[in-house]
Amino acid sequence: MTTIAFIGLGNMGLPMARNLLRAGQDLRVFDLVATSVAELASEGATAAQSAADAIQGAQVVISMLPASRHVEGLYLGDSGLFTQLQPGTLVLECSTIAPESARTVHKAAAEHTIRMLDAPVSGGTAGAAAGTLTFMIGGKAEYVEQARSIFELMGKNIFHAGPEGAGQVAKVCNNQVLAVQMIATAEAMAMGVANGLDPAVLAEIMRQSSGGNWTLEKYNPWPGVMENAPASKGYSGGFMAELMAKDLGLAQETAQHFGNSAPMGALALQLYRMLLKQGKGKQDFSVIQQLFIE
Amino acid sequence: MTTIAFIGLGNMGLPMARNLLRAGQDLRVFDLVATSVAELASEGATAAQSAADAIQGAQVVISMLPASRHVEGLYLGDSGLFTQLQPGTLVLECSTIAPESARTVHKAAAEHTIRMLDAPVSGGTAGAAAGTLTFMIGGKAEYVEQARSIFELMGKNIFHAGPEGAGQVAKVCNNQVLAVQMIATAEAMAMGVANGLDPAVLAEIMRQSSGGNWTLEKYNPWPGVMENAPASKGYSGGFMAELMAKDLGLAQETAQHFGNSAPMGALALQLYRMLLKQGKGKQDFSVIQQLFIE
Amino acid sequence: MTTIAFIGLGNMGLPMARNLLRAGQDLRVFDLVATSVAELASEGATAAQSAADAIQGAQVVISMLPASRHVEGLYLGDSGLFTQLQPGTLVLECSTIAPESARTVHKAAAEHTIRMLDAPVSGGTAGAAAGTLTFMIGGKAEYVEQARSIFELMGKNIFHAGPEGAGQVAKVCNNQVLAVQMIATAEAMAMGVANGLDPAVLAEIMRQSSGGNWTLEKYNPWPGVMENAPASKGYSGGFMAELMAKDLGLAQETAQHFGNSAPMGALALQLYRMLLKQGKGKQDFSVIQQLFIE
Amino acid sequence: MTTIAFIGLGNMGLPMARNLLRAGQDLRVFDLVATSVAELASEGATAAQSAADAIQGAQVVISMLPASRHVEGLYLGDSGLFTQLQPGTLVLECSTIAPESARTVHKAAAEHTIRMLDAPVSGGTAGAAAGTLTFMIGGKAEYVEQARSIFELMGKNIFHAGPEGAGQVAKVCNNQVLAVQMIATAEAMAMGVANGLDPAVLAEIMRQSSGGNWTLEKYNPWPGVMENAPASKGYSGGFMAELMAKDLGLAQETAQHFGNSAPMGALALQLYRMLLKQGKGKQDFSVIQQLFIE
Repeated sequence: MTTIAFIGLGNMGLPMARNLLRAGQDLRVFDLVATSVAELASEGATAAQSAADAIQGAQVVISMLPASRHVEGLYLGDSGLFTQLQPGTLVLECSTIAPESARTVHKAAAEHTIRMLDAPVSGGTAGAAAGTLTFMIGGKAEYVEQARSIFELMGKNIFHAGPEGAGQVAKVCNNQVLAVQMIATAEAMAMGVANGLDPAVLAEIMRQSSGGNWTLEKYNPWPGVMENAPASKGYSGGFMAELMAKDLGLAQETAQHFGNSAPMGALALQLYRMLLKQGKGKQDFSVIQQLFIE
Repeated sequence: MTTIAFIGLGNMGLPMARNLLRAGQDLRVFDLVATSVAELASEGATAAQSAADAIQGAQVVISMLPASRHVEGLYLGDSGLFTQLQPGTLVLECSTIAPESARTVHKAAAEHTIRMLDAPVSGGTAGAAAGTLTFMIGGKAEYVEQARSIFELMGKNIFHAGPEGAGQVAKVCNNQVLAVQMIATAEAMAMGVANGLDPAVLAEIMRQSSGGNWTLEKYNPWPGVMENAPASKGYSGGFMAELMAKDLGLAQETAQHFGNSAPMGALALQLYRMLLKQGKGKQDFSVIQQLFIE
Repeated sequence: MTTIAFIGLGNMGLPMARNLLRAGQDLRVFDLVATSVAELASEGATAAQSAADAIQGAQVVISMLPASRHVEGLYLGDSGLFTQLQPGTLVLECSTIAPESARTVHKAAAEHTIRMLDAPVSGGTAGAAAGTLTFMIGGKAEYVEQARSIFELMGKNIFHAGPEGAGQVAKVCNNQVLAVQMIATAEAMAMGVANGLDPAVLAEIMRQSSGGNWTLEKYNPWPGVMENAPASKGYSGGFMAELMAKDLGLAQETAQHFGNSAPMGALALQLYRMLLKQGKGKQDFSVIQQLFIE
Repeated sequence: MTTIAFIGLGNMGLPMARNLLRAGQDLRVFDLVATSVAELASEGATAAQSAADAIQGAQVVISMLPASRHVEGLYLGDSGLFTQLQPGTLVLECSTIAPESARTVHKAAAEHTIRMLDAPVSGGTAGAAAGTLTFMIGGKAEYVEQARSIFELMGKNIFHAGPEGAGQVAKVCNNQVLAVQMIATAEAMAMGVANGLDPAVLAEIMRQSSGGNWTLEKYNPWPGVMENAPASKGYSGGFMAELMAKDLGLAQETAQHFGNSAPMGALALQLYRMLLKQGKGKQDFSVIQQLFIE
C-alpha cells in the first residue's frame, strides 16, 4: 500500500481519487472546497488541511488543477511543495496546462530530485468515474513504468508520449484535432440535412467512409442521431465547450512557441469563442452544431 | 447476363469496367481515348465508336466522367442519350458532380422514363482495381435494389444516401470532412514534432484517442509513419490534391445553394488551392503536410 | 435626347431611372412590379408592358436585375432581347452578376452586333438616389466613352475596369475586400473595448494609422461611434448583409473559376452566412459586429 | 534641456534617439551592441556602460526593446530599474509588448511612484528616421501632456489611447487590421489579375471605392503598382513579415485574455507563419502576396 497525496478534487479529480481509494490505497486529500474533501473522507480518505498537510508521508503526489498558474503556484517558489517533498517522491501532475509551463515545473522538479511526470488525461468525467481515462505522459520512461500501476487504477490507456512536457503536447494536439473534426462533422451534417438527407443515414455513410472520425463513432453532434450522445440530451453532460476553448487556447500557445501554423486549430478556437459569447460555454462542446443551423 | 454500356474509361472507369467484364457481363465500352477502348476490347469488351453506339441493346448504362458539364453534355439536350435510350433503361451515373447538376439530370431522366441513380464512389484507383469501392447513391430505393448486384461487382459498400442527388451530397460532405481532418492531422503532426515528439508515437496516441480519424487510421500524412501511405512514397499514388480541390469546390457550391456556413470546408479549399499554386496538384492530397513544415 | 429602355426598377433601379428622367431623357420603363412602373410613369416615363415593349425605339437599354439567371433570361435565347434589338444598340448591364455569366452575355451581344458593357455599381441606395454611384465597367473602351454621359447622370465615379466582364470582377474584388475589412474592424473594435478602450478613440487612432480603411472612414460598425452610420441606427439602412453574402458568393465563384486562393474572402462569406442563419440578413452588413460581442 | 536615458538602440531605437540628439537633448544611451552606442556617442550622446549607468541623472527614461521579457527584465525585480530611478521619473516605454505585460510593468511603476506610459509606435524604420512616427499611448492623461514635447521630437501623431496598457492594445488592434487588409488586398489583386484586369487599374478602382484601405493608399503588394512600395523593390525595406507575425501573436494573446473571437486576425497569423516557414520572414510583410500567385 502506497500513501498518495491527491490535490485538487474537482469534477475530474474527485472520481479519480475515489478509484484509488476503492483500490485500497492510503489516500490523503486536499481541495479548497471543503465538501469535496469531506465527501472522500467519509469514504475512507484522510482529510488534509492544506496541500502541505496532504503530502505528509506521501510517496506519491497527484495533482489535478484548473490551469498553469495553479500548478506553478502549488509546486514552485519558496513555499512551493518542491521545497517540502522528500527527494525521490513521484509527482503525477495530471492537470491540462501549457507545455511550456509543464517544462518549467519539470525543471524545478529535477533540481529537487523529484521524479515528475506530466500526465494530462482524456475521457471526461465519465471516464474518470469508470476508471477508463487515457493518460498522455511526458517524462522519463523509467518513471512511467514506476507509476504505471497507479495510473492503471484510474485509466485504461497509458501512453508514454515522450520527454518532459510531451504529455501536454500530445493532449493539445489531440484535442485540437478533436475540435476541428467536431466542427467539420457539424458543418457536413448541416449541409447534408439542408439538402434533404436523413441525418442518421449521412452520419453512418461518413462513419464507414474516409470521413470517419471519433465524433462520428461516439459523439455525433446532430440531435437524435446517437441516443446516448450529449447532442441527444440537450447538449448536457460530456465535455464543456469552455473547456474545449481552453484547450484550443493552449494549442495556439503551443503553436506560437515554435512558430507553427495551425489554421484549422486557430479557426476552431475562434468559433468556440463565438459560441461562448452566445452563452453556451457550459454546454457540451458538440453544441457547436448550433452555429450551423437556424 | 446483362448488356452494359460503360462510358468513360479514365483512371477510375477503366478498372471498374474491367471488374464487370471479369464477372462475365456483356460490356460495350466507349471513351474519347481510343487506347483505353482498345485495351478493354482486347480483354473481351465490345468497342463502341461513340456513346450512341455504346448504348445499342444495353439494359444498363454506366458513366464515369470528369465533371458536371460532361455528364450534362452526355445525357441532356436534343442529341443527348436520354432521347435515345429505351424507356426503363437503368442509368448508373458514377461521376462526382454538383448535386444541383445531378438533380437536373435526374429530372430529365424521369421525363424520359429512365431509371437513374447518382452513384459517386470513394476508394480511389486502388479501390476501383480491387472492386472494393464505396458507392453513395441517390435516387429511388427500388432502383438501388435493382442495381445492387451490378454495384457489388465493383464495390464493397453500397449506401443508399437518399433521394435524387443525395449520393452526390453524401460524397461532398464526406470528402469535405476528409480534407479538413487531413489538414487538422497535418497541423497536429507538425506541432508535435516541433515540440520534440516522435511522429509515430504522437500518431498512435491520437489514433487511439478522441482525435482518431480515418487519416490517422489509414493514411498518415507524415512521411515514414505508415509504410504504405502515400506520404512514405513521396506523396505518390493515392488521391490527387487537385481532385480533392475539385471536390471541395463542389462542397462549397453545395453550401452556396442552401446558404450553409462551412468555415472549415471553405478554409480547406483555400489551402488546397494554395498548394496547387505551388505546383503540387498531381501529388497525393496528404502532401498538404508540406504547408506546415519547413 | 436619347430614348432609353430601363428594365428592373428595384431599390437601386428605380432611383437610377428617376435621375435619368429628371435629366430630361426619354425613358421607357419596365418591371414585373406594376407599382414601380406606375410611379415612374407618373413622373413622366413611358410605362411598358414588357421588356420587349420597353425596347421599342430605344437607342440605349439599361438593365438592373437581381442575379445572373435574370440577366441571362432577359437577353439570351430564342426570345431574348438580343434577337430583337437593333444592331448597334448600346446595352448597359448594371446588375451584379458572376463575371462568367457577364462574359457569356457579352459573347452573345457581340454575335448580334450589340454594343454591350457590364457596369455594376457601388454606393448603395443612397448613392443611387443622389446620383453619386460608382460604376465599374467592363467592355470596349470606345463604348465606355459613348456611354459616359449617360453614366454621369447616375453616378460620380466612372471606372473602365478592363475587357468584357472586368466590371463584375472589379466589383467582386472590391466588395470582398470591403467585407473582410469590415469584419477585421469589428474584431478590433470588440477587442479594444473589452480591454477598456473608448470605441471612438480606438476608431480614430486606427483611422489615422496603417489600419485605416473605408469602414473606419465612413461606416464604423460599433454603435455610437459615427452618428450617421447604420450601426448607430440599429443597423438599419445601408447595404443588407444578405446582399454582401451574395457578393461574397460571386467572389468565391470567381475564385473557383481560375483556382485562386482567397482565404480571407472565403472566411468572410462563411461568417456572413452564419449571421444570416441568425436571421440578420435584412440588417446592414455592419451588423457582423454582433458576432463579436455578447 | 532634459537629460534622457535611451535604452535599446536597434533598427527603431537608434534613429529615434538620434532625433532627440539632433533636437539638442542631453542623451545617455545604452545597448548590448557596442557599435550602436559608439555610433551615437560619436554624434554627441553620452555612452553608458549599462542600463543602470544610463539612468544616472535622467529625468526621462525611454526604452525600445524587442519583447515583453526584455522589458520586464529591465524594469522589474530586485535589480530592476524601478528600484533605482528617482521617484517621479518619466518612463516612456516604446516597445511593442503584450498589453498584459505592459499592465504588469505599470503596476510596479506606480508602486515606485514612477510616471510611466506605454507608447508603442507605428511607422517603421522610415518613420523613425524621419521623426514621423505614430505613438499610441496608454497611461494617465497628465503624463501624456508632460511627455508630449519629447514624443513630438520623434513622431507626428501622438495619440492618447486610454489607461495603462491601452497603447499596446491600440497597437495590436491596428496592426491586426493592417495585416488582414493587406492579405485581403493581396487576394483581390491576384483574383483580378487572373481574370485579365490590369493590376494598376484594379488597385485604383478599389482605392477610390469602399474597398479602400491604407495598403491600397500607400503600400500596394503587387509588384509595379506603386513605384516606391516594397513590392516594387523585391519586397525589401518596410516592415518585416516576422515582425508582423510577432504583432499578430500579441493580438491573439490579447484576444485570449478576454476571450475575444477574432477569426480574421487568427487566420492572418497562421498565413504569416506559413510564409515564415517558407523562409520569407525577413522580407517586407507585403510579400504575403506570393502565397496567392504561382
